[in-house]
Amino acid sequence: MKVKVISRILEANDRIAEDNRRLFNEKGIYVINLMSGPGAGKTSLLVKTIEALKDSVSIGVIEGDITGTEDAERIHSTGVPVVQINTGGACHLDANMIEEVLPELPLDSIQLLFIENVGNLVCPAEFNVGEDIKVMLLSVTEGEDKPLKYPLMFQESAALVLNKVDLLPYLDLDMERLKERAMSLNPKLKVFELSCKTGSGLDAWTDYLFRMVAEKNR
Amino acid sequence: MKVKVISRILEANDRIAEDNRRLFNEKGIYVINLMSGPGAGKTSLLVKTIEALKDSVSIGVIEGDITGTEDAERIHSTGVPVVQINTGGACHLDANMIEEVLPELPLDSIQLLFIENVGNLVCPAEFNVGEDIKVMLLSVTEGEDKPLKYPLMFQESAALVLNKVDLLPYLDLDMERLKERAMSLNPKLKVFELSCKTGSGLDAWTDYLFRMVAEKNR
Repeated sequence: MKVKVISRILEANDRIAEDNRRLFNEKGIYVINLMSGPGAGKTSLLVKTIEALKDSVSIGVIEGDITGTEDAERIHSTGVPVVQINTGGACHLDANMIEEVLPELPLDSIQLLFIENVGNLVCPAEFNVGEDIKVMLLSVTEGEDKPLKYPLMFQESAALVLNKVDLLPYLDLDMERLKERAMSLNPKLKVFELSCKTGSGLDAWTDYLFRMVAEKNR
Repeated sequence: MKVKVISRILEANDRIAEDNRRLFNEKGIYVINLMSGPGAGKTSLLVKTIEALKDSVSIGVIEGDITGTEDAERIHSTGVPVVQINTGGACHLDANMIEEVLPELPLDSIQLLFIENVGNLVCPAEFNVGEDIKVMLLSVTEGEDKPLKYPLMFQESAALVLNKVDLLPYLDLDMERLKERAMSLNPKLKVFELSCKTGSGLDAWTDYLFRMVAEKNR
């Protein structure tokens, strides 16, 4: 019974996600659903990415948080259009929440739309919102066991961004084991290692985004 | 409608949590529901706490994970009784899951029971499982904005353990602001700053636990 209710919720969600996807495709917008646990650095990654790309790609952001507007304010200060969704307790964004805020964004002039999900390694992976790809951000401080414990998010993501590599000298992390475990769940996963603090490794990530946006509009 | 379904789920959960609590009180077991985001160090904290306390307090552990048994194996190697719950996708433990595994623990010889919840700063805070207190663990790498974004967990917890303080020299964390924000949500919150890696600050935490266990059995 419980399973049936949940599968109906997911089906309804997928229908709305398809509507969103159709709209994004019509407008030629490349959409990234960015997911991570709390404090892995999603907003910092977006700020750095926007700074690097905004002269060549027009960017928009949908910010998802349970409550508060701090992240949206950080994004707003970069000068790109941003809309805040407060889920009011819900632990993930769903397609309906995205559909509702789309009229508030200048979709005709956006080429790359980031949807920053609620900080949570579990539930967001179950809900499509109409994105082209899901990207998972993981702080290297979180340890090499995360693929074993949150496999769905690794399986659903097209890219894995490993953030805070500036802290590696002070951690006991086995980086090779982390990457092996992630790749064994998802052999196609693209992995980026970077530090939003120092800027190291950001170029490979922003080059990848630039290519994906260009391909969608070819 | 959705709200009604959720409130009925929470009511049913609370009834089972009360049954669990009654049993724990009969047996004189002090129960801690330990919650954090992914990779904050819940299992490391338990291993260090068990090592420090196991000669003076008899401890048991219930391990909650979506999948896998790595954490339960780490706890098992300390020599205390441990039971693994795999939620199979669910993002939190509930009272029913706890009730089901209690027969597998030697309750008559346990004074302090840790319930390690699924790594998630959102949903676990909504579900009582029959605990005496909820304890929130936060890695200082997660940033000083967490109280603004996950207020319920700070409000529900009796104690906040700030882990990985050995990394503070390499972070831009504003520790005072973090603590102010946490205390403004919950003025009674007890705050412990420690490092499971170096052992610094662990004594205050284990002394606190020892006192709580002794008080329950006075």
